[in-house]
Amino acid sequence: MAVERKGDASPVTVADRDAEAAMRALITEAFPAHGILGEEYGTEREDAEFLWVLDPIDGTKSFISGVPLFGTLIALLRDGVPVLGVIDQPILQERWLGIAGVGTTLNGAPARTRTCPELADASLFATSPDMFQGADADAFARLAAGVRLVRHGADCYASGLLASGFVDLVVEASLAPYDYCALVPVIQGAGGIATDWDGQPLGLASDGRFAAAGDPAAHAQALARLAGP
Amino acid sequence: MAVERKGDASPVTVADRDAEAAMRALITEAFPAHGILGEEYGTEREDAEFLWVLDPIDGTKSFISGVPLFGTLIALLRDGVPVLGVIDQPILQERWLGIAGVGTTLNGAPARTRTCPELADASLFATSPDMFQGADADAFARLAAGVRLVRHGADCYASGLLASGFVDLVVEASLAPYDYCALVPVIQGAGGIATDWDGQPLGLASDGRFAAAGDPAAHAQALARLAGP
Repeated sequence: MAVERKGDASPVTVADRDAEAAMRALITEAFPAHGILGEEYGTEREDAEFLWVLDPIDGTKSFISGVPLFGTLIALLRDGVPVLGVIDQPILQERWLGIAGVGTTLNGAPARTRTCPELADASLFATSPDMFQGADADAFARLAAGVRLVRHGADCYASGLLASGFVDLVVEASLAPYDYCALVPVIQGAGGIATDWDGQPLGLASDGRFAAAGDPAAHAQALARLAGP
Repeated sequence: MAVERKGDASPVTVADRDAEAAMRALITEAFPAHGILGEEYGTEREDAEFLWVLDPIDGTKSFISGVPLFGTLIALLRDGVPVLGVIDQPILQERWLGIAGVGTTLNGAPARTRTCPELADASLFATSPDMFQGADADAFARLAAGVRLVRHGADCYASGLLASGFVDLVVEASLAPYDYCALVPVIQGAGGIATDWDGQPLGLASDGRFAAAGDPAAHAQALARLAGP
């Protein structure tokens, strides 16, 4: 496997680039008027009504380490709102598909979040403790102190698990739009909620802070903890 | 899935207990003179020449969250020395088997660690940042600052990945014998090295600090960082 480094030292693989190029070619052929924003090759037609947001391999550190929790993320935004999302894990052969107003499926079967009315009963996932810098680290520590279980390292797969009712909270920071746009319809379609840390809808202009829950009650309590003591 | 809490708040499932009971019955039938030490049901015949050390589900937090990186760990100790180890991941259907003096296989094919002569090039895995308390947290931070990549959340699967040459270092603390005994022959049989943080062989009396590497050079550098600035 050929691996090189980006400016931020995250590993990028040839597979990453080739996968995005393949998706771009398919989209451009089928929907020439649509825009595309991808992690590897940037943006084209960003002002189009429909914009595809692509992360060919979310979790490249997992990918190069052999951990099968990376995934391909595909989002479709309409007028800036994520309306369709795909999380695809090729090793486990699991694919979540969420469509606004329709629902979410895992490999074709309906996926639903579970209830979690009390934050103290929640399981919380985040990709890495290192993603929380400065005040974000303090905020995450406050939240972590209030939940039942904290786990790291599941990348986008954690949001799939949330959509399927296995975990209760996914909280991240320092994300780019291609990291989170696909997660939103998957989670919403399954009955969950995904916003920034202020409770605002996620879009291209969001600040990279991501807070998702299967139960709106747990979401509200998590945002309160993130906001302050 | 039935889940309850142990005194230390880690989740224990019915599956955990049933799996250990099944393994104990098989061992007792085949090797009535052998001893058994298991996470769920304690110790019998601990002074026997051969002692089986069992963790039916290593990574119960992953297990109950739907993360397929938990595993069943089986070790055989002879006179206190781990001579055989199994890491079994049933979702991915991957099984590492390591035997002292013979070698390590993954699903029957030889597994080998990779070289990593420089710590700065190493990828480092640990189950959770929360497992490092007090001075251990400082030690782990010193080590983490010297490697290329740090990842959390892979439980015993990280040691399998190390044996197969996908990652370079696995460093843990606060482990019990059933957490680490099986890892030792798997890693050693693949060409790696697994000791405590002082470089001493791992056995039942070890202090729960675990440091494994695929390359002895990276291991030595990692121990030096753990020991002090």
